[in-house]
Amino acid sequence: MNEWKKNLRNIEPYVPGEQSKDTDIVKLNANENPYPPSPKAIEAIKSFPAETLRLYPHADATPLKKAIADYYGVGVENVFLGNGSDDVIALSFQAFFNSELPILYPDITYSFYPVWCRLFDIPYETKPLGADFRINPDDYRGKNGGVIIPNPNAPTSICEGDAFIKKLMEYNGGSVVIIDEAYADFSRYSCVKLTKEYENLLVTGTFSKSRSLAGLRIGFAIGSKALISVLEAVKNSYNSYTVDALSIAAGIASVKDTEYFNATIDRIINTRTRLTDELRTLGFTVLDSGANFIFATYEGRNMRDMFEYLKTKKVFIRYFNLPRIDNYVRITVGTDEETDTLLREIKNYLGGK
Amino acid sequence: MNEWKKNLRNIEPYVPGEQSKDTDIVKLNANENPYPPSPKAIEAIKSFPAETLRLYPHADATPLKKAIADYYGVGVENVFLGNGSDDVIALSFQAFFNSELPILYPDITYSFYPVWCRLFDIPYETKPLGADFRINPDDYRGKNGGVIIPNPNAPTSICEGDAFIKKLMEYNGGSVVIIDEAYADFSRYSCVKLTKEYENLLVTGTFSKSRSLAGLRIGFAIGSKALISVLEAVKNSYNSYTVDALSIAAGIASVKDTEYFNATIDRIINTRTRLTDELRTLGFTVLDSGANFIFATYEGRNMRDMFEYLKTKKVFIRYFNLPRIDNYVRITVGTDEETDTLLREIKNYLGGK
Repeated sequence: MNEWKKNLRNIEPYVPGEQSKDTDIVKLNANENPYPPSPKAIEAIKSFPAETLRLYPHADATPLKKAIADYYGVGVENVFLGNGSDDVIALSFQAFFNSELPILYPDITYSFYPVWCRLFDIPYETKPLGADFRINPDDYRGKNGGVIIPNPNAPTSICEGDAFIKKLMEYNGGSVVIIDEAYADFSRYSCVKLTKEYENLLVTGTFSKSRSLAGLRIGFAIGSKALISVLEAVKNSYNSYTVDALSIAAGIASVKDTEYFNATIDRIINTRTRLTDELRTLGFTVLDSGANFIFATYEGRNMRDMFEYLKTKKVFIRYFNLPRIDNYVRITVGTDEETDTLLREIKNYLGGK
Repeated sequence: MNEWKKNLRNIEPYVPGEQSKDTDIVKLNANENPYPPSPKAIEAIKSFPAETLRLYPHADATPLKKAIADYYGVGVENVFLGNGSDDVIALSFQAFFNSELPILYPDITYSFYPVWCRLFDIPYETKPLGADFRINPDDYRGKNGGVIIPNPNAPTSICEGDAFIKKLMEYNGGSVVIIDEAYADFSRYSCVKLTKEYENLLVTGTFSKSRSLAGLRIGFAIGSKALISVLEAVKNSYNSYTVDALSIAAGIASVKDTEYFNATIDRIINTRTRLTDELRTLGFTVLDSGANFIFATYEGRNMRDMFEYLKTKKVFIRYFNLPRIDNYVRITVGTDEETDTLLREIKNYLGGK
């Protein structure tokens, strides 16, 4: 072996879900929004003075921070921006999880957390969800290097409320707690307001789901000035210009168009209710969802088999071959038409087996 | 102090150069291109189907990789993409610089290298440039954890050729060598072809300078499959979707428009020649530049003072208060009109003092 190969990083990469670029598929496997971004965001792109792209974007992206700050009722100094929420969370791990003690997160959760722990050599410990797939806050009591929990959790879709977050914060006065709110807009619950009460609480969010801007990569975090300033320092030690000029422009227009935003969320919540009800009627167990996806199983039926069957019908959903959830499927809430197709194919599958 | 504050990352952030957003200034301080991006890149943005931004971008951004691969005559598997070349280099540090031995780079060079070393705990050692501000390849002989050198170097603007790179590679069979070609298009020299000869040579580049797309954040690396696959694994452990959908579209259009690209480079090289000649006529010492900026001093004159004077005249250039170069200025090559203004104000300064 060549000597230089000895110092190459040896790492198992995260493998993202299948991203077929076929246009005739029903794509319910990546929790993307079935509706386009706000027309105002689209207009912001079309009317952007593209000749100015020769210049670096605003290093702090302050105008977008300001729009987000106004939306959530916090100060500009409480908002951090990144290249998607994965970037924001990766920087947060480097900024806040520097203890010798393990950080804590649920055994069933976003699969990137252990990947970042390995990348940055952060010790971690997972806490099993209850039999009902809920997170027990008492498991997060005691000394630790930090806590990260998505709310709603993924792929379970379950959303916890104020009481849960407050308990978590009371137990964890000694470490930074990150609540990953990637799907929070679909639950109409956010713990952002609690960042004013708890200086060690960081809330992360994304424009990829509720704002239909996955293609543009905008993520953010909200927290105390103490947390945000450290995050800014780490980010400025990594890459000064993470959010590009078009994303800033489209992001601002999106945040300001609350009417379109709320209407889109309402549509998705309505379709989610319908999908949940119809699947339950068919005999599925569907967890109560606060996200833009549902998590379901069917006793006595093989969900992996159903997942494979649906793929042959060009309906893509998500299956995880992981302990405890290997007979569940995660289905993104699509349009009503997509839901019709999905339900028809599921009925065909159930009837035919 | 709150206990949770103990584990916050304590880091001195990189401070980027002044980025005044005044529109009536002559901005020659950030090595931005004075000309707009290719009209085809602008058209790619205007005609982009913005409703598809609801979907994640192509995780591998293969279509843009393919365009870059074709341009440089390498394979798609030899191309890596990131969110600006800072992102690409930061990931490369994590991918390749994992030795206990220090990595090597010049004492006068891109100021981000020590910042990344501190962020990732990479030991480093700097090698002084010669009195003529050139890099002596013999300094990079001997065991090390890796080598990174910009070519042209910044802020000196000096470009080395094949003989230099080959010597460097012969000396460093035991470690990964990164050549940072952020400014290479302005020298018309690239060592990309040598990546076929040396499996441990990685060349990085950016769309921010020669392609006038600083606002979009596109960086890339070219190297052997052995290097690129490790870089991909590290990137996929950090952030799966680093290059957004609009950047991919505009980037492809830009790479394919070689006519516009070459014409723009020619214009900048012509203005650089004129600027260099006129400054030398005025009595300045100007290093021979292979970049879109020049590095100059004037014996017996205070360059910091000139820098401050020009700022009051709304002409922004760059001054570094650093050992060895604290009586130099770095001036971006602008349009001919901007160069007229710059030279007029410099003459006023010299005449008035």
